[in-house]
Amino acid sequence: MTAPFIVVEGLEGAGKSTVMTVIANWLAQRGTDYIQVREPGGTPFAEALRDIVKGHWDEKVSAEAELMLMYAARVQLVREVIQPALAHGQWVLGDRHDLSSRAYQGGGRQLPDSVFTTLRALTLGEFRPNLTIYLDIDPAVGLERARSRGALDRIEQEQISFFTRTRARYLEIANSEPNIQTIEADQPPDKVRDDVIRLLEKLWPLA
Amino acid sequence: MTAPFIVVEGLEGAGKSTVMTVIANWLAQRGTDYIQVREPGGTPFAEALRDIVKGHWDEKVSAEAELMLMYAARVQLVREVIQPALAHGQWVLGDRHDLSSRAYQGGGRQLPDSVFTTLRALTLGEFRPNLTIYLDIDPAVGLERARSRGALDRIEQEQISFFTRTRARYLEIANSEPNIQTIEADQPPDKVRDDVIRLLEKLWPLA
Repeated sequence: MTAPFIVVEGLEGAGKSTVMTVIANWLAQRGTDYIQVREPGGTPFAEALRDIVKGHWDEKVSAEAELMLMYAARVQLVREVIQPALAHGQWVLGDRHDLSSRAYQGGGRQLPDSVFTTLRALTLGEFRPNLTIYLDIDPAVGLERARSRGALDRIEQEQISFFTRTRARYLEIANSEPNIQTIEADQPPDKVRDDVIRLLEKLWPLA
Repeated sequence: MTAPFIVVEGLEGAGKSTVMTVIANWLAQRGTDYIQVREPGGTPFAEALRDIVKGHWDEKVSAEAELMLMYAARVQLVREVIQPALAHGQWVLGDRHDLSSRAYQGGGRQLPDSVFTTLRALTLGEFRPNLTIYLDIDPAVGLERARSRGALDRIEQEQISFFTRTRARYLEIANSEPNIQTIEADQPPDKVRDDVIRLLEKLWPLA
């Protein structure tokens, strides 16, 4: 049986890294074999694309080109790293996955829904995470946190309206798909941690 | 009125560069303002993708990732370079365009047709070349010519069956779309040149 694939999603500054650590520690304490991945990236080819998509360019990078790069990086990571690990019984813990494209490029950049249906079918087939934890935060709060960490990349430099549309799409999808669980990310860190652990224990209780 | 967009297509070793020069000279002799572009590439962002897609990687680059990169590079070139030039009355002479993806990734790599319909609509809309010259050649002959020029890139290193499928798809599409004209590329160079010039003079006679 293949192992579970858990993904953490959310806007910049939602606290994804902290929650990734919470889950990693939870897995380690149970003695579970796991790997951690991030998107875009995770293979040499995909990391090269990450540099390109996050880089600053003199030309206007179109929403369509950005989307293509995200799916190109994703298909490499899934086939080269994620699926082989799961097949060998290793859990996979992912920092972003397909939901990011649907929220950022679909919501933020307003690319049509039909595109995602085709691209997902082409690149992912029926492959989906077993659990996606969506950390919901007000974009203004999240961006302020992200800014305090240092320089922002090309996408992080978008207007607030872009992130407001992205968040709306995140919530819309999270509310309609049972494998996506929303956690309020503006709670105190301990509370967020408790919510995450409770979710994991419920889905994967120790025998 | 926008200027015409002329594309040269064909397998490796079909003689695309020679025909590009023939057309460039024809345009220059008429005093026509034109630019030359190649795919993938033509903007800093697209050239970075060209290096990635043509590079040699330890991982298996999936057909899907390759296709995404081709369309990402294409949409940047079209929006940043080709469409602005045409709008300013400059003719554009292109070394490969969308037909390459349909032939190589659709025919050679056997990706489903439906994908191209969606990707073309997303990235190109209704934008199409005014004339595509497809240089038809037996893959064995073309590859021999390409090999004699030096090292082959990742895609050029495919099996002959890959190029046989690619050629079949080229011919299939060329036979069904009126703006694509097939020229036999294994004729003597003078004859190929004459065929090209005849085509151009017919479509764009001097007033």
